[in-house]
Amino acid sequence: MGDVPLSHPRYNSLMGRKLLTDAASDGLLADSALIAHGRGEAYDYLLGEKTCNSARQAISQAAIMMQNAESCVISVNGNTVALAADELIRCAAILQCPIEVNIYYRTDERMDALNSRLEKVKGEVSHCEAPSNWAGDWQKAVESVVILGAKPSGKIPNLEGPRANCCTDGILGADVIFVPLEDGDRCEALIAMGKKVIVVDLNPLSRTARMATITIVDELRRMAPLLLLDLINIDDLSPVKWNNEKNLDNSLAVMLSKLEN
Amino acid sequence: MGDVPLSHPRYNSLMGRKLLTDAASDGLLADSALIAHGRGEAYDYLLGEKTCNSARQAISQAAIMMQNAESCVISVNGNTVALAADELIRCAAILQCPIEVNIYYRTDERMDALNSRLEKVKGEVSHCEAPSNWAGDWQKAVESVVILGAKPSGKIPNLEGPRANCCTDGILGADVIFVPLEDGDRCEALIAMGKKVIVVDLNPLSRTARMATITIVDELRRMAPLLLLDLINIDDLSPVKWNNEKNLDNSLAVMLSKLEN
Repeated sequence: MGDVPLSHPRYNSLMGRKLLTDAASDGLLADSALIAHGRGEAYDYLLGEKTCNSARQAISQAAIMMQNAESCVISVNGNTVALAADELIRCAAILQCPIEVNIYYRTDERMDALNSRLEKVKGEVSHCEAPSNWAGDWQKAVESVVILGAKPSGKIPNLEGPRANCCTDGILGADVIFVPLEDGDRCEALIAMGKKVIVVDLNPLSRTARMATITIVDELRRMAPLLLLDLINIDDLSPVKWNNEKNLDNSLAVMLSKLEN
Repeated sequence: MGDVPLSHPRYNSLMGRKLLTDAASDGLLADSALIAHGRGEAYDYLLGEKTCNSARQAISQAAIMMQNAESCVISVNGNTVALAADELIRCAAILQCPIEVNIYYRTDERMDALNSRLEKVKGEVSHCEAPSNWAGDWQKAVESVVILGAKPSGKIPNLEGPRANCCTDGILGADVIFVPLEDGDRCEALIAMGKKVIVVDLNPLSRTARMATITIVDELRRMAPLLLLDLINIDDLSPVKWNNEKNLDNSLAVMLSKLEN
């Protein structure tokens, strides 16, 4: 793909594309992962490649839900690790919650590659400066983030095959799951377990988007720093009575106006 | 990806995905080709994964333009070969026009792989039955289709880098170019040369879609058999004064109504 200059008007989109193709070369992704990313690109194009107001509201309410959870977990797949491993490790450090690798097309090779990548990025993030406005021992906070998934100890009920495998210390025991880029079947199964599920999905019409407790219709790399910001400045946020369907319709309206103009 | 049963409601979409991931494994595609396919999938979802009326009209007018050309060429890239090599070889056999491989990220390895694949499929198609309603020596018609692109003899003006390379017997000398899945820059450069350019693009807002002489807003595997049908039954078709912008707006309206409902 070549280098992308920072001045390029579509820098973020092209960088995302590069992170994904690099991750594919590194064996982090299933065959169809790049196709899924492309679908996201198309919807993001319709969003104007910007975080819309309804997404911004969803991020804040997600931060409140994650902070107030009894037991929160961040569930990641290959695309999520490729795009936002660093920011999500920061979020987990602030929440002191685990990150669980939970992938659709599960192979030992990909699980190993994803775990290694997360441990490597965790090491890097622990040596970075703490996010501004956060007080505490940053290195210690990051180092204490547990990466789960390699040794699943249970299964998500009503879901066939290896994609159901997960950990009792993570997804199975959590009341709030932040799972960007989730599959519709698994989202449905988690909701059926009574869990609060927060997803990031650029397609407001998808089954995942319609099923989730809170759907953030935004690009993952763009929303992750905003989630981090809200998790740190949680005292500035006010919970609202959440109407996910109405919020999705507001995101749809942004896409409609792009198509109409 | 596993096998896709024919009864699956999204069979065509899932088969397209499988053809693309297989082609990637076979070295036919550039890194970002699967991402481009995913963008197409998203727009096709908004089209309801059906050939809309405006696309059907565009296909017929494209068939007339190709049949009436002084010199027609079918220009293909990796995704096009993966999805529709067989049907486009049939179209070329009926038109007795060359197929030219013209790719954005040109490497010798990919050019070789694409040429070999096209020659292989050409051999297979030559031993298939002739399309119904077509009279003549099918095997001879298919065997006489020339595959160009391996030895470019000229350049598309005003286009940088190896993506400008093409053949005087093909793209450079043609008055009508059917080029599914074209890039915006190259479409613009071909139009600037005074050529008639027919594209297949699922995004009616793309620069390619807006630049082309005729834009078929449809999925390539779905439209290729319809183009073949029209090329054979050309006497049943009537040329109309073509308004590409209006036709694009009609396709956009189909997507809008999907988002609205």
